[in-house]
Parts: sequence; structure tokens; C-alpha cells
Amino acid sequence: MARIVMKFGGTSMAGIERIRIVAARVKREVDAGNQVAVVVSAMAGETDRLVGFCREASARYDAREYDVVVSSGEQVTSGLLAIALQAAGVPARSWLGWQLPIGTSDAHASARIEAIDMTALDASLAQGVVAVIPGFQGIDGSGRVTTLGRGGSDTSAVAVAAAMKADRCDIYTDVDGVYTTDPRIVPRARKLSRVTYEEMLELASVGAKVLQTRSVGLAMKEGVRVRVLSSFEDARDDDGHRGTLIVGEEEIDDMERQLITGIAHDKNEAKITLTQVSDRPGSVAAIFAPLAGAGINVDMIVQNIAHSTGSTDVTFTVPAVDLTRTIDVLEGARDNIGYASLVPDTHVAKVSVVGVGMRSHAGVAATMFTTLGERGINIQAIATSEIKVSVLIEEDYTELAVRVLHTAYGLDAAE
Amino acid sequence: MARIVMKFGGTSMAGIERIRIVAARVKREVDAGNQVAVVVSAMAGETDRLVGFCREASARYDAREYDVVVSSGEQVTSGLLAIALQAAGVPARSWLGWQLPIGTSDAHASARIEAIDMTALDASLAQGVVAVIPGFQGIDGSGRVTTLGRGGSDTSAVAVAAAMKADRCDIYTDVDGVYTTDPRIVPRARKLSRVTYEEMLELASVGAKVLQTRSVGLAMKEGVRVRVLSSFEDARDDDGHRGTLIVGEEEIDDMERQLITGIAHDKNEAKITLTQVSDRPGSVAAIFAPLAGAGINVDMIVQNIAHSTGSTDVTFTVPAVDLTRTIDVLEGARDNIGYASLVPDTHVAKVSVVGVGMRSHAGVAATMFTTLGERGINIQAIATSEIKVSVLIEEDYTELAVRVLHTAYGLDAAE
Repeated sequence: MARIVMKFGGTSMAGIERIRIVAARVKREVDAGNQVAVVVSAMAGETDRLVGFCREASARYDAREYDVVVSSGEQVTSGLLAIALQAAGVPARSWLGWQLPIGTSDAHASARIEAIDMTALDASLAQGVVAVIPGFQGIDGSGRVTTLGRGGSDTSAVAVAAAMKADRCDIYTDVDGVYTTDPRIVPRARKLSRVTYEEMLELASVGAKVLQTRSVGLAMKEGVRVRVLSSFEDARDDDGHRGTLIVGEEEIDDMERQLITGIAHDKNEAKITLTQVSDRPGSVAAIFAPLAGAGINVDMIVQNIAHSTGSTDVTFTVPAVDLTRTIDVLEGARDNIGYASLVPDTHVAKVSVVGVGMRSHAGVAATMFTTLGERGINIQAIATSEIKVSVLIEEDYTELAVRVLHTAYGLDAAE
Repeated sequence: MARIVMKFGGTSMAGIERIRIVAARVKREVDAGNQVAVVVSAMAGETDRLVGFCREASARYDAREYDVVVSSGEQVTSGLLAIALQAAGVPARSWLGWQLPIGTSDAHASARIEAIDMTALDASLAQGVVAVIPGFQGIDGSGRVTTLGRGGSDTSAVAVAAAMKADRCDIYTDVDGVYTTDPRIVPRARKLSRVTYEEMLELASVGAKVLQTRSVGLAMKEGVRVRVLSSFEDARDDDGHRGTLIVGEEEIDDMERQLITGIAHDKNEAKITLTQVSDRPGSVAAIFAPLAGAGINVDMIVQNIAHSTGSTDVTFTVPAVDLTRTIDVLEGARDNIGYASLVPDTHVAKVSVVGVGMRSHAGVAATMFTTLGERGINIQAIATSEIKVSVLIEEDYTELAVRVLHTAYGLDAAE
């Protein structure tokens, strides 16, 4: 007997027919003798509808009331799945965020789970009753409803799995796993059987939107074995596995370890260049301190070699959605920084190669630069971490870069 | 300063534009110096949508999970109205059924309110914060969500008003008050300024669907002054009043008291005649005991004069929706009852004249029978209470009967 958490996203919960398919999947795990908790999202489109109501009611809505409104979507699907499970002969009941309770911080609309009370849940599971838990919601210390931010149901599922000491947390979604890269760009991309938490964090944060980043961080911290798999297909690998397992590095044996695990890309960055910044101590701080103060995340930074004039150009990237705010902040700080001009550019993309294998292998970055150079792709900025090399390139070259790198690192599936 | 409860139905909450109008109405009461609690329904159509999901998920759904699903509609409108009030400059917050809490019985889908904890609510009102409370919902002793049955938000409003010792409970709806009869049938029907609880109970239960019957009973028991008025119009009577006030008999002075307050009709009854029932002790009990056991409400009963053969015909009415079940029950009990044939008839209507004034006046029933007889309308059954006389007639004559009675009792408005 194992304890497992199954999480289903909005596409899997969109309408009663699909909820019945979910119930059948859960029944299979129960019939196999497992204790099961299910975490559900709202029906696809429902959260958008509810968020739309709040925005229409007031541009500056109270986040506490927003949470009351938007948390209702998961409440509905929890009750409906419990009904569908019972109809399939599986004992089940819903446990709302305030009923368990799932305690969170009071940062409404982006709360963090602090503690899940297992008393009621343990008793329910021990009696063989499937617990259906709405994702995305909890309550704060003063008993008000909170939500975790968009995509928060993944985090709910991992948190429940950690609290339950679950053997596995299965995230059912509309893709059948994590791929070496986006299969729409590279048809010969391969599904990965296993990937480490750290690789998944890098792949997720640079554009592979399979799981909410925060949920992967939590799984790593709590050692929760997460599996990503399709709600709609039952296809298995040659080795009999379904989906992609996200685990600690120690669970991946050397034989199957690749140098590079995947290639990610992200078109949602914007590049800003400040020209002729005076080359004196503190000038760089004068740029980035006000941006940090405004809560804007700066990613890649390049400081060019100083001109003979005693000034330098500084280039960096920010999320494209923050570009207007970034420009406002920098124009406000212009006198303090001292620059000649501000040149924004949204026609850029970040392409990254990711893999824990590169820790023990030199030459990964060199292969990347050579491969891109041979195709005439100019590199505008570079950033590296222990398991990742990212480059900023002109947006039009994104797909070409991903394809040639996928081949260069030997990731293409056999024909 | 007064304490008032304002309740808004689904049509008043249908969409953000209308919720803003509701917020403006609430603001007016707050600006007048009142402490206000607002009870809201779900958006028009939303509860039907949610009930539809439950039925689609399983014909025999768990009422506890049904309550989780359908209570979400009022949760959404509570949060949205709180946001709209804040946007209008009125301090406000939502209090969900489990937050106050509103304690109910555990009869899921038709629970009764048992106690409303006023601790949090009193503190909030004392600080000048409008409390927005979802109607229709509560929690039972084991902390599960309950709902009160369709139309239950009226009962929530009256219960909150009783707990708050409110000076008034204003029920905003899509009509501007209670009329002497249905204005679609009698254009010269008059809006009543005041009506007693008992009259309202009789008018509501025989077809004037302005308020949930249970809410009127609760208002009578708790002495809550209820006012029914329009969400959409501000029209006032000649004497400056809006809507209809529902109060105790002692508040209606003799001058304004009418003999008859109103004429109601109900086409949702079905008539059943059992022929040649043996005229022996216990034969009538053999008919009605199994119907009571099946939870079917029998309304009017006529036992005809015994035939010389020692048998009698028994006629009675049940709600039309229960007709099929009634026939099943009676056919199952046929041997025990002993009857020749069962004759159902759904082409009947019940017409009632209602008024506390008839307590002290004889002749009300006689006027009714004479008036109908003069028009050739045959009376199939009669039922009376202290303040009501009802007759069963052929359905096609309903409107004619209502019109002639309205005139006969002097209820027509001046031209």
C-alpha cells in the first residue's frame, strides 16, 4: 500500500464528462490498494472569469475579497469530483482549505502554505475515504480565505504530499511529461523519464511551463517525488514508465545521466541598454537598486568594456511585462545614474541549455557558442549557473538556435 | 441610528453593473447613519448552473457535496459586493457562513438555521464596517457546509436580522411589493402598504412567490419587521412609503384594515378521486397514512356522502409534481384501501381569499361562493382556515375567478 497524491489541472476538470474520467483514474489507484488524496484546479477558464469580475468591480480590489471570490472555482470542482467518485463506487469527501485547515501566510492572492493539519485527513485516509482537496486555497492566521497565486494548485499538491509523507505526487496535466525541448519546435524532442529538481527549476523558470516553479522548489526542499503525466493518454515508455519523474539527483544513476538534459527558450524578456554610464564606483548600484526597490527582477547583466572616455554601456534584461515600469524607474533615476540614452529592445529571446551533467564536464558553453556561431547567430549576453548556460539572441533566431543545439548535444530521438 | 439588514436577490446581483447599483443603495443607508448588514443571493442563473453540474455528476448526489458546490454562488457575490462597496468608499467585508459562523441543522440541502454567532459581526458593525453575508449557507455541528434550500437567502436575511435585533429587514427583489393579487391578471390590483405575517404566509403558500414561506414564518416567530421592495425602482406610495411592510397584526390600525387583503391562485395542484372506497372505520386512514409516509403533502380533502351501497368517493389534492408518486403509492395500497378506480385531474386551480379581517366578519365564504356561482364556476372542493377560504375550480376559470373576486371584495384600485 502506498500513499499518493494525484493532482488534476483545469483542462482535466473542464466539465462533468472529464471529471468522470478523473474519477476513473482515481478509482484505479484506490483499487490497487493505495491511500489517495486528490488535489484539483478550477474548471478551465473559471478562474479567469472570476478574476475578471473582481477587476470589473474595482481596479484596486481588496485582495482579501478577491481571494473569497476566486477560491470558489476549486470549491466547485472538489464537490463535483467527490460526487463523481461516489458514483463510481469510491468513498470520497471534499476538504476545503479552511476545513483541514491549510494554514498560509496572510499575503493575499500570493500566500505561502505554512502548515497543513493532518488530523482529519489522516483519519479519513485510514478509513479508505479518498480526500478531495481544492488546490490554490488556504486560510491565514485570522481565519480569512487566501489563495496562492496562479498555478498554485501544483504547490498545494506538493504541500499535501509532503504533509502526508506521500510516496508520490502525480501531477496530471495536458502534456505527457517533460521533454528535452518544446516538441512544437523540435519534433524529434524526447520525453525524459527522469529529471532532477534543479534541472526542472531551470527548465520551468526559462519557459517550460509544465509546473509552477514554486511547487518544484517545495518538492526539492521536502523531498517529494513528483511525476508529471497526461490526463488524457496512457502511453508508456519503452521501459514501461509513464510521464516524467522529478526526483533528487541521487535517484538518477550514472548510466542514464546525460550531459545536457534539455534546451529551454523564453521570449518574455526585454533587453535594455544604458549608454555612456559614467564609469565610477556606485554607478551600477544606482541602476539596480531602484529596480530592486520596485520589485523588478533583473536577469542577465552585461557591462561593456569602458570607453576611453571614462564611460561604459550597461545591458540587462527584465521580464517584458515589466518593461514600461522599468523605463519609468530609470528615467526617474537618470540624474543619479548619469547615462546618455536608454535603448529598449523586446525582440530578444533567451535560450538555455540545462543539465546536472555539466558540473563534471567542461566544454558545454564552448559547444554552445561554437554551434550558434557556425549558424551566424550573434550572442548579445551570457549568463551561467552550475547547471545552466543561457544566451540572449535576436528573437527571430530562437527556433533555429533551439534546433541546432538539440542536435549538437545529441538529444534528438532516433528516427 | 438604526440597525438594518438589506437582502438582494439574484436579479439584483446579476453582473457587476447591477452589483454597483446595489452598492449605491447600501451606501445611502450607511450615509444616513445606519449600521448595515447585507445578505446576498448568487447571480441569477448561477445556482441553476451549479445544481445542473451536481445532477449531471450523479442522479443520487451526496447532499453534503452538493452543498459545497452550490454554496459557492453566494460566496462569489459576497466578495464582489464587498469590493464594489469599498470602491464606493464604504468600508465593507464579507463574512462567509463558516466564518461568523451561521450554525444550522445537518439536513443538507434543506438545513435550518439554529444560531448565528454575533461576536465578530457586532464588532464589525460597531466599527462602521458593512458586513456582507452570503445567503443560503451555513455550517452544521461537524463543520460541514450546509445550504437552506431554494429561496433560502430570504430566511438567512431574516435570521441575521433577528440575531442583530435589527430595526428592519429590507428584502430587495424584482417586484415593488406585495399586491392584492397578481397584477398580470388584474391590472387594477393595488400594492399593499402593510400586510400581516399570517396573511403573507397564506399568500406566499398559495402562489404569491415574493418571499420564501419559511422566512415569513421565522419573521413572525422572531418579530422581525420585513419590508419587500424593488431593487430597480424608487417609486413611493401616496403616503411616502416604499414597498410593502410585513408586520404583526397589532401594527395595522383598524382604519386601514380591509376585510380581505388579497386573492391568491395556485395552478400547481393536482386532484385525485378514489371511487367506491368502502365506508368503514379506518378506510380514510388507509389512504392518507401511506401518502404521509412518502412525504407527500395532501391539501384539500372532500369525502362525499356515502352511497347507499356502503361506499363513498374520496377527493383530495396534492402538489402536481408529486402526482406520479402519489399514484404509485395508492396503487401499491389498493388492496388495503379497497377502491374501484383512481381518477387523476391536473386541470384544476386553487383560488384563495385571504385576510385577517375575516376573523370578525361572517359572510366572506358566502360572498365567494355566490360570486363564483353567478359566473357559472363550479366549486370542486373547499378548504378554510381562520384567515383564508380556498376553493378548487377548473383551471380554465382561474383568471376569471380571480378578477371577479377582486372586484367583489372591493380590492380594485380607483381608475
